[in-house]
Amino acid sequence: MAENTASSPLLTECSRKEQDFMGSREIPAGAYWGIQTLRAVENFPITGTAISAYPGLVSALAQVKHAAVLANFDLGLIDAVKKDAIEQACQDIEQGQLLDQFVVDVIQGGAGTSTNMNANEVIANRALEHLGQAKGEYSVIHPNGDVNMGQSTNDVYPTAIKIATIQGTYALLSAMAHLREALARKAVEFDDVVKVGRTQLQDAVPMTLGQEFSTYAVMVDEDERRIREALVHLHEINLGATAIGTGINTHPRYAAEACSHLQRLTGLPLVTAGNLVEATQDCGAFVLFSGTLKRVAVKLSKICNDLRLLSSGPRAGFAEINLPPRQAGSSIMPGKVNPVIPEVVNQVAFEVIGNDLTITMAAEAGQLQLNAFEPIIARSLFASLTHLTAACTTLADHCIDGITANKEYLRSQVEASIGVVTILNPLIGYDAATSIAREALATGRSVTSLVLEQGLLTDVELDEILRPEHLANPQARTPDPLPL
Amino acid sequence: MAENTASSPLLTECSRKEQDFMGSREIPAGAYWGIQTLRAVENFPITGTAISAYPGLVSALAQVKHAAVLANFDLGLIDAVKKDAIEQACQDIEQGQLLDQFVVDVIQGGAGTSTNMNANEVIANRALEHLGQAKGEYSVIHPNGDVNMGQSTNDVYPTAIKIATIQGTYALLSAMAHLREALARKAVEFDDVVKVGRTQLQDAVPMTLGQEFSTYAVMVDEDERRIREALVHLHEINLGATAIGTGINTHPRYAAEACSHLQRLTGLPLVTAGNLVEATQDCGAFVLFSGTLKRVAVKLSKICNDLRLLSSGPRAGFAEINLPPRQAGSSIMPGKVNPVIPEVVNQVAFEVIGNDLTITMAAEAGQLQLNAFEPIIARSLFASLTHLTAACTTLADHCIDGITANKEYLRSQVEASIGVVTILNPLIGYDAATSIAREALATGRSVTSLVLEQGLLTDVELDEILRPEHLANPQARTPDPLPL
Amino acid sequence: MAENTASSPLLTECSRKEQDFMGSREIPAGAYWGIQTLRAVENFPITGTAISAYPGLVSALAQVKHAAVLANFDLGLIDAVKKDAIEQACQDIEQGQLLDQFVVDVIQGGAGTSTNMNANEVIANRALEHLGQAKGEYSVIHPNGDVNMGQSTNDVYPTAIKIATIQGTYALLSAMAHLREALARKAVEFDDVVKVGRTQLQDAVPMTLGQEFSTYAVMVDEDERRIREALVHLHEINLGATAIGTGINTHPRYAAEACSHLQRLTGLPLVTAGNLVEATQDCGAFVLFSGTLKRVAVKLSKICNDLRLLSSGPRAGFAEINLPPRQAGSSIMPGKVNPVIPEVVNQVAFEVIGNDLTITMAAEAGQLQLNAFEPIIARSLFASLTHLTAACTTLADHCIDGITANKEYLRSQVEASIGVVTILNPLIGYDAATSIAREALATGRSVTSLVLEQGLLTDVELDEILRPEHLANPQARTPDPLPL
Amino acid sequence: MAENTASSPLLTECSRKEQDFMGSREIPAGAYWGIQTLRAVENFPITGTAISAYPGLVSALAQVKHAAVLANFDLGLIDAVKKDAIEQACQDIEQGQLLDQFVVDVIQGGAGTSTNMNANEVIANRALEHLGQAKGEYSVIHPNGDVNMGQSTNDVYPTAIKIATIQGTYALLSAMAHLREALARKAVEFDDVVKVGRTQLQDAVPMTLGQEFSTYAVMVDEDERRIREALVHLHEINLGATAIGTGINTHPRYAAEACSHLQRLTGLPLVTAGNLVEATQDCGAFVLFSGTLKRVAVKLSKICNDLRLLSSGPRAGFAEINLPPRQAGSSIMPGKVNPVIPEVVNQVAFEVIGNDLTITMAAEAGQLQLNAFEPIIARSLFASLTHLTAACTTLADHCIDGITANKEYLRSQVEASIGVVTILNPLIGYDAATSIAREALATGRSVTSLVLEQGLLTDVELDEILRPEHLANPQARTPDPLPL
Repeated sequence: MAENTASSPLLTECSRKEQDFMGSREIPAGAYWGIQTLRAVENFPITGTAISAYPGLVSALAQVKHAAVLANFDLGLIDAVKKDAIEQACQDIEQGQLLDQFVVDVIQGGAGTSTNMNANEVIANRALEHLGQAKGEYSVIHPNGDVNMGQSTNDVYPTAIKIATIQGTYALLSAMAHLREALARKAVEFDDVVKVGRTQLQDAVPMTLGQEFSTYAVMVDEDERRIREALVHLHEINLGATAIGTGINTHPRYAAEACSHLQRLTGLPLVTAGNLVEATQDCGAFVLFSGTLKRVAVKLSKICNDLRLLSSGPRAGFAEINLPPRQAGSSIMPGKVNPVIPEVVNQVAFEVIGNDLTITMAAEAGQLQLNAFEPIIARSLFASLTHLTAACTTLADHCIDGITANKEYLRSQVEASIGVVTILNPLIGYDAATSIAREALATGRSVTSLVLEQGLLTDVELDEILRPEHLANPQARTPDPLPL
Repeated sequence: MAENTASSPLLTECSRKEQDFMGSREIPAGAYWGIQTLRAVENFPITGTAISAYPGLVSALAQVKHAAVLANFDLGLIDAVKKDAIEQACQDIEQGQLLDQFVVDVIQGGAGTSTNMNANEVIANRALEHLGQAKGEYSVIHPNGDVNMGQSTNDVYPTAIKIATIQGTYALLSAMAHLREALARKAVEFDDVVKVGRTQLQDAVPMTLGQEFSTYAVMVDEDERRIREALVHLHEINLGATAIGTGINTHPRYAAEACSHLQRLTGLPLVTAGNLVEATQDCGAFVLFSGTLKRVAVKLSKICNDLRLLSSGPRAGFAEINLPPRQAGSSIMPGKVNPVIPEVVNQVAFEVIGNDLTITMAAEAGQLQLNAFEPIIARSLFASLTHLTAACTTLADHCIDGITANKEYLRSQVEASIGVVTILNPLIGYDAATSIAREALATGRSVTSLVLEQGLLTDVELDEILRPEHLANPQARTPDPLPL
Repeated sequence: MAENTASSPLLTECSRKEQDFMGSREIPAGAYWGIQTLRAVENFPITGTAISAYPGLVSALAQVKHAAVLANFDLGLIDAVKKDAIEQACQDIEQGQLLDQFVVDVIQGGAGTSTNMNANEVIANRALEHLGQAKGEYSVIHPNGDVNMGQSTNDVYPTAIKIATIQGTYALLSAMAHLREALARKAVEFDDVVKVGRTQLQDAVPMTLGQEFSTYAVMVDEDERRIREALVHLHEINLGATAIGTGINTHPRYAAEACSHLQRLTGLPLVTAGNLVEATQDCGAFVLFSGTLKRVAVKLSKICNDLRLLSSGPRAGFAEINLPPRQAGSSIMPGKVNPVIPEVVNQVAFEVIGNDLTITMAAEAGQLQLNAFEPIIARSLFASLTHLTAACTTLADHCIDGITANKEYLRSQVEASIGVVTILNPLIGYDAATSIAREALATGRSVTSLVLEQGLLTDVELDEILRPEHLANPQARTPDPLPL
Repeated sequence: MAENTASSPLLTECSRKEQDFMGSREIPAGAYWGIQTLRAVENFPITGTAISAYPGLVSALAQVKHAAVLANFDLGLIDAVKKDAIEQACQDIEQGQLLDQFVVDVIQGGAGTSTNMNANEVIANRALEHLGQAKGEYSVIHPNGDVNMGQSTNDVYPTAIKIATIQGTYALLSAMAHLREALARKAVEFDDVVKVGRTQLQDAVPMTLGQEFSTYAVMVDEDERRIREALVHLHEINLGATAIGTGINTHPRYAAEACSHLQRLTGLPLVTAGNLVEATQDCGAFVLFSGTLKRVAVKLSKICNDLRLLSSGPRAGFAEINLPPRQAGSSIMPGKVNPVIPEVVNQVAFEVIGNDLTITMAAEAGQLQLNAFEPIIARSLFASLTHLTAACTTLADHCIDGITANKEYLRSQVEASIGVVTILNPLIGYDAATSIAREALATGRSVTSLVLEQGLLTDVELDEILRPEHLANPQARTPDPLPL
């Protein structure tokens, strides 16, 4: 392997030697990671982004290892000295130290083994350091024998992904609540702004701009609820399953003990899955959770499509609302301002929908006792979560909060609209109302003037019936408002 | 429009004349549908499949119309004669009559208006018939004024889709339960069949074939639960919203009355959405439900991938199980039998995943107060539901029930496997165990013989440790099985 | 198998008995299909749609069988009597007879074997009929031994799919050309209609409506070209490959002879793939072709999105163009007319994009020497082709042809627009131009009046520079129009 | 804006002040970027990855700006001093300098305006530096007026994306060729290794392992060809289109001049699109190109699925080939080695397929004269390209090159296989051959012994017919090998 060693970009002058079944390799003296991590780094030069890009995952891995060593200690399987050193190392990582030692690529073969071994090696070497030992002295504390005791990548890795996902989701939920509140404030602010509602982009019947924004608030609210529901299923972990779910090499009480410690360390109501063989190969919770994020993306995209449409103009568009200007919109057209915030949110939505497909394909490709493709599932899920979180925050702060309405213009549109003829259906029938609508459209006249001219209703009656506020809120009328 | 009339493929010798704002058209005398349906048939010659292909949707439409007329009657908005005639017409359709009168294409523009008008016209003409009137006498009973009273396509259509989806889902759940039970029976049958578990397609540690099948049963069971959860949200309807959710042209008590009647007619615990403006434009429930069906598809596909893999052979494959032969497998290779049932299920899964994308795009494309693309959402959802239902049933009946295991062969593989070395980890350490594994692989010898030869354990100890049943069920051991 | 026979829904009183390795079954006396087809019908009750729904596929299967029997006859492998009878049977089917005998479900397991055997059996029994023999006398003409001689499903089926796809694509190309011409006519018609161009839905700089429509015509034209390019690769067939591409059981000259006959029968420049093992397992041509249809769908959807946007209104929208009314747009809003034709095209586009995903997943799932999932690929491809064809035709005939423009309104918008300030950039600089734009927007004044007021340009200069025709067609200006 | 300024994370002690229509902001003294970039950084805190992650895009932007300034100089629109300074600045960036100044997020609203303005500002300030001026002295060289002269984001940005994509594709093609050669070498090496071919995972007829690998080589070769074809369309640029394709503010000869300079600078045969209005809003070339990458992903995934399947084992799998061990495969199972390289390639494939969906959705969402979502298209395309490139290289170097075959085992499987009975079809008929196959399977006996026992063929005949080499290569036989 000499030539391979020589060419390693990770080699520094000062190094230690480590060995595995393939041979021995030089490891930079300062590295907390070891030979298995080195091989993974060389094997997977795919994205250039290391797993340290996901601090939540790294911290969750440390929590899992932490829980495992405490459980093993409780069961008498590891001595106090080792336990203390490993625990301290885990705590260091939980607190954000050594993040730069998590160097394997986010897209990696091996079902997460490289990520797990990266953690095992870093923790082992940090624990050795705490014991005053040199790095690499694995006879004292072994990455597999001690740090990984009672564990397999196949239970550690999905458990850590779930914890990191849950924590990332809390951030998303908080951003969504922030967005919802911004939308709800606008719903109140625009409560008395009447406007023309549209179906299929054609003028329909009146409504208020407040109703438009409260709809968006309700959409976000419902999505929050659906996320919370989907999140429940991510609390089911398979720690104790080891290799394939049969729990080989674990103490019978280990799964329960480890879960209990992990609950305490994470503060999450985690539970051990009822069937560990199933839980070890199943990615259903990720598919469903990503499907829920896809729903959020669809709704956010729809909201942003609407915002861009309603603010189109300033003179040759819908011109209903004004988004706050955020930057010059064009390198060539002076004064042009574009809806850049909704646009960036749309793009995040498209990315999330693409990520959902990646996750779906990876889940479908799992075979027999394990899904080998969890790393891409994790990466796609984390990208969806963090980008959606950023999108919600920037949408609330940089766009929704500053929206203003062109109230007078909107009212004038309602007054000119043909859709008000709908209210006459019960009075004069659908066919007669259709005639009036067609005539209004053809002549450019108002529905009101035609109704009066044809003596269908009196001024007073029309005034009452056609008040925009009534049209927009029929439910607010007295019980029997149309005694016809 | 003369030339248009002349060329209509729908015209028969005997016909009646109907009129709309575009002009008048001849309608075949026997047709219960009218001019609006005719125009839709001419406008959307897309798939050649009429909405009569979805009897559940047609029946649900009749139930919605039925509930509406009862509510309008309760509120004094329609007289008893009309009410009775319309009710009777709805009942006819609920019972499966006139299905062939639902002739508009399943893919149609117009947000479902053509489907709604097809129903309005058929019901009106059937009601006229019940009153002894000629078809087309809309001055007596009008498709819009009477049958559609207090309604809009925009509340009727999604409500009917939801009812049809719920009822279709009950059929799916029943098929899934049937499949789950078949899998569970096999789990019991294969309870004592030990085999080599595999991760990443490489031999791992022992398990039982019963565990393999119980995993599949659990997967289906979890999917059933997730479907039931997602189904809840489909019970939220927007009847009473009319055009855009403001309830224009409805009596203030109409929404509640109509929902109550519809509950009774369908036997479903339907509820009126809290915010009707939101509910009218929101397709989130469909997106989430389809996302849940996608999860089902992913799992079914995974199970079928496994079944095809485990039954690969007969001589140059895994040869663990035998699927029941269903048909000759090849037009050229005599005696070849293929896993045709899992294969067809895989294909349904791919279709469902594609349908989910179609639904996602259609939902994202909704603008402002309405989603104009609900027809393709409905079509894709119904296809996913019915095909998944058929797939689960055929998988259970034509495949799972007849599976047999090659028990002796499986046991011999466990005995020859290297993965059993895993159990020695706690005894001799990961590195020493690795050496034995590598040597076994290189020499073709068994792990057992090498352990004995190296004096690591005695015969008796090994026998106890390496019994496949113990390896496959470590949790079944006495509390402290490894006093090492 | 008695009970199975008894319950067969396909059994009629008069029947014949056929046998396969699983036992014997009664076949309805009138059926041209036989026992293998019967088993397939029972095995795959998925969609209820039989392959007869694809007459192009059935006809192509007959052409392939036809070419094969001619090649076998040339090579002396089959006698003239059998050859003549089989040829005649194939010709019957090529001419559209016996279509109702193709009864297996469009979604089926078995890589198309059931479709191939359905064809083999129908052709054998029709040939027997031509010879005056009873159906089922397979000792005279055998479905496998004679009709399928030198063939395997694995070469017959993809070859037939390719022929059917090519022929379906000609229909699509013709519909696209029809659409393109309709768009191009509008481009000419609207050549002098100036309007405000928009980027990011915000008013930008002037253009003509003719440019808008010519863009659509160019888009369709480019898509036609891309389809033609992708189509080339579908002409590469694997007839002669038999089971796995090694050509087992074929005469060395068979592949060439059969391809030559098939060229003549189909009139298509088919070629035999260079590597038949590769060609037998490869679905790349379908993936790429479907990817090209996806591109068409994306463009069509974009065009329809624009048409719906430009025709939004009539009073509270863009109101640039008017789509021809096709049907009443609402069951509740009288006089409302909706863009139903673009809407149905959007939905077809979403379906095509979903189908592309289904095809992608099916192609990816292929294993080793064959892709077992070709039936769902065929079904999805045929659906995309036929629905896109219908969509293009209906869009051209029912929408584009009748579009009118609101010419005066559009010109007034150009005159009021702020984007014309762009033209002043080279004269007064980006920053000064920005100031004018902002002032115009804030005050509601025109750019022109501000420029004059500030003495930046004279009336005459402005008139020349700001003529909409010049703004929309800078390239039409004299060579050095801005001597600054 | 004081509070906003105060909180800016980008502010350093030493700063300059810049101004736009929204107000003035402090810019770090050392920054080459200016106020528009600052606003974009604040507006789009989405991924944390700056566009400097795509050096190819940054360099292409500089090339476009470089070509533009040369064209403007040729046309007498900019003086030599400015031209020289801007040219020098562009050259600096083309050579990789100032990469860290490209700081806007890869996901951004605004159709790429922020990327373009980032480039304009960096180039302006670098040019000012070359002229001995302070940064921010835009009256001397203005980012919009001078650097962006005759340009709009809407022509600059897609042109730069295309150049960067083309250059990235050359890297991919080179990696694919490298992979293809590795596969072809294995095809030669395994030319004489006979094995059982499989269809639908069931044993079929014999072939060689060389045929298996040559198939993979052909697949990659075809994909290379398809990429080259799709790449052609990316050479069509819209430089000179400016805002919406009408070429506003460009000299009539500018488009041709700029394209000519850009050809020279990039060495690419770029051409100006025939219809610039169409070209400015059209993302079809990206959709089609991504669709082609999706095809590559599908094939690569299929190859890797096969490699993992063929190397399954070591004892309870197909065990046909051995992948070179790359790292320890398990943290718990000693000696286990997994197919980590194919696994990572599978994951890249799933990502590419997801990216294609993102691109498809973004392209479909384009409205009117521009697609606002090009940034996510660019990001997804670049990710697909670079990850596929890395995947091909690592697959060739870390997997294919080291594959070995279990030659003896494979031959023994052929000898035991039932599929060889296929060759007897023409001799004894499909039905008789089926009987032998079923008997062989039921009894565990070989086809050969049954044929001999039944006196169907002599020893000598069988020997000739059943030689694996003949079975695998029927085309290599003498012209009339089956004298029947």
